[in-house]
Amino acid sequence: MKVNPAEAVQLLNEHDNILIIAHAHPDGDTLGSSYALCRVLLSRGKRAAVICEDNIPKMFSFMAAGLSELDFEPEFIVAADVAGTKLMGSHVMERYGDGVDLCIDHHFTNELYAKNTLLDDTAAACAEIMLRLFKEMRTDISPVVAECLYAGISTDTGCFRYPNLTSGTLRAAAELIDLGADFARINKDCFETKSKSFVALEKMALNNIETYFGGLCAFITITAEMLRECGSSAEEFDRIAALPRQIEDVLVGVTIREQSNGTFKASVRTNPPMNAADICKRMNGGGHIGAAGCTLTGTAEDVRNTILRNVEDALKGEKKL
Amino acid sequence: MKVNPAEAVQLLNEHDNILIIAHAHPDGDTLGSSYALCRVLLSRGKRAAVICEDNIPKMFSFMAAGLSELDFEPEFIVAADVAGTKLMGSHVMERYGDGVDLCIDHHFTNELYAKNTLLDDTAAACAEIMLRLFKEMRTDISPVVAECLYAGISTDTGCFRYPNLTSGTLRAAAELIDLGADFARINKDCFETKSKSFVALEKMALNNIETYFGGLCAFITITAEMLRECGSSAEEFDRIAALPRQIEDVLVGVTIREQSNGTFKASVRTNPPMNAADICKRMNGGGHIGAAGCTLTGTAEDVRNTILRNVEDALKGEKKL
Repeated sequence: MKVNPAEAVQLLNEHDNILIIAHAHPDGDTLGSSYALCRVLLSRGKRAAVICEDNIPKMFSFMAAGLSELDFEPEFIVAADVAGTKLMGSHVMERYGDGVDLCIDHHFTNELYAKNTLLDDTAAACAEIMLRLFKEMRTDISPVVAECLYAGISTDTGCFRYPNLTSGTLRAAAELIDLGADFARINKDCFETKSKSFVALEKMALNNIETYFGGLCAFITITAEMLRECGSSAEEFDRIAALPRQIEDVLVGVTIREQSNGTFKASVRTNPPMNAADICKRMNGGGHIGAAGCTLTGTAEDVRNTILRNVEDALKGEKKL
Repeated sequence: MKVNPAEAVQLLNEHDNILIIAHAHPDGDTLGSSYALCRVLLSRGKRAAVICEDNIPKMFSFMAAGLSELDFEPEFIVAADVAGTKLMGSHVMERYGDGVDLCIDHHFTNELYAKNTLLDDTAAACAEIMLRLFKEMRTDISPVVAECLYAGISTDTGCFRYPNLTSGTLRAAAELIDLGADFARINKDCFETKSKSFVALEKMALNNIETYFGGLCAFITITAEMLRECGSSAEEFDRIAALPRQIEDVLVGVTIREQSNGTFKASVRTNPPMNAADICKRMNGGGHIGAAGCTLTGTAEDVRNTILRNVEDALKGEKKL
């Protein structure tokens, strides 16, 4: 059932011992939304905790600082920025996937798996919806909560750069600055600072770009060996994923990364009229119009061929080939 | 004399045949502010034109589209985002530098060379002040004027990423989106799209980074030959200039580019507590706390040594060495 912000607030008010689920391979928006909600619920005297299948990237560790791990039996389960139960990661999905009471999300691909869903697919970030919810609650928003939400908004819009931006997004961010968010630190950590290993990875990626279909598709392959050589992490890969689409005339940018279990994680970024979510859906993945992902098995060559075949179909579908 | 927005509006209302000067090596803010003002003055029935010593970068050509060149004797001269007459470039400075009636600017280094100066050094961009001025005028703001100002704000804040950002900047940008600015196109042109030559230049720059003072300073040298080899332009160099400061632990990022006349243009970007404007001032340049520039003569090695000496002094001044 779809609910509005007032109904979502009522559900939260009526319950205690609240577990909040962030999606696996967590980004700033799922973590920022989850930890902001957790902190607000705690400040209102409830028990609350966040779980996430994977580790929190260093730049977002401030969100969880000082909070306890889950140490109670959840009575009410919220998922934040989680479009489908598979995105929770296998352990979290098995344990909690069927029991989500309230999902708060902004993905138009949301599978409506929760008992109640607060969905606004016009919001650039789930954190934007969360801010609305907190205002509906008439709750105080502390500087650290404002920072969680600011990080969510700024990372999901590529620091206000992607076409999903609206004037409402900018006004929400302005409000969060006025509430004390240290935006300069967040922007520096999320968008400016490059570790030495990231600079090495970027150099390697630039040296490995391949183009297909007359330059309409740019493709970067990052093997486990390359990541090891750079001393680079999976998180750093996510920033590399933005690179191929940025090249002039490219409509589909693809980056694949070999994971520790031998599968490949693919990140697809598109420019209009191409739709990254559509392309990844053909390979059991999902995401947004401009940025989506999927996981594939096989050799790097198999995976590249599979993806290129789907990219080719999509380009033909849009009469670009 | 310093003036407030109301006084600046009165000066503009009282005059006709208005020339607007943008600074040399023009960026989005000087051009956006100048062309926005020009278009507003034209819409109010005045004669107005913009001049700039150098060519307009392609991504900003929309600002000047459909406007005439200067074809009248100026009666009133405005400078937009020009902190000192030297920044106009030698030809424009010689002709008009002593006769500026109104300077509208946000640089704290403004030399107060104009008869009247509307200065707000808390504004992240001159375009922010310009928006305030237009509201003071109670003038209609067309979508193209909104786009000029949006481009000014977004480029001067590194797409809302730099510490000069305020909640007011974000609200101004939100207003401009509501006025019809095609922000997605502007962001894509200014921050996303990389020409093939730029990708080549970026690769070359990454392969040429040198670090000094235990990694506190990162230095990139771009020779005329390297620019030729990449097929890259001077504009593209400006985007490379952001690179060295982004590396972890770097406090001073320097990029030097050999110009066609054999001199070197240096771009200095700093992280706190270092001050780029202070460093460049020692070499007869100027700019902002975080981003400044200067021009030096000599071989690449001479220039590097001169800059490194000044960087060393500055680092010692802040007890970082």
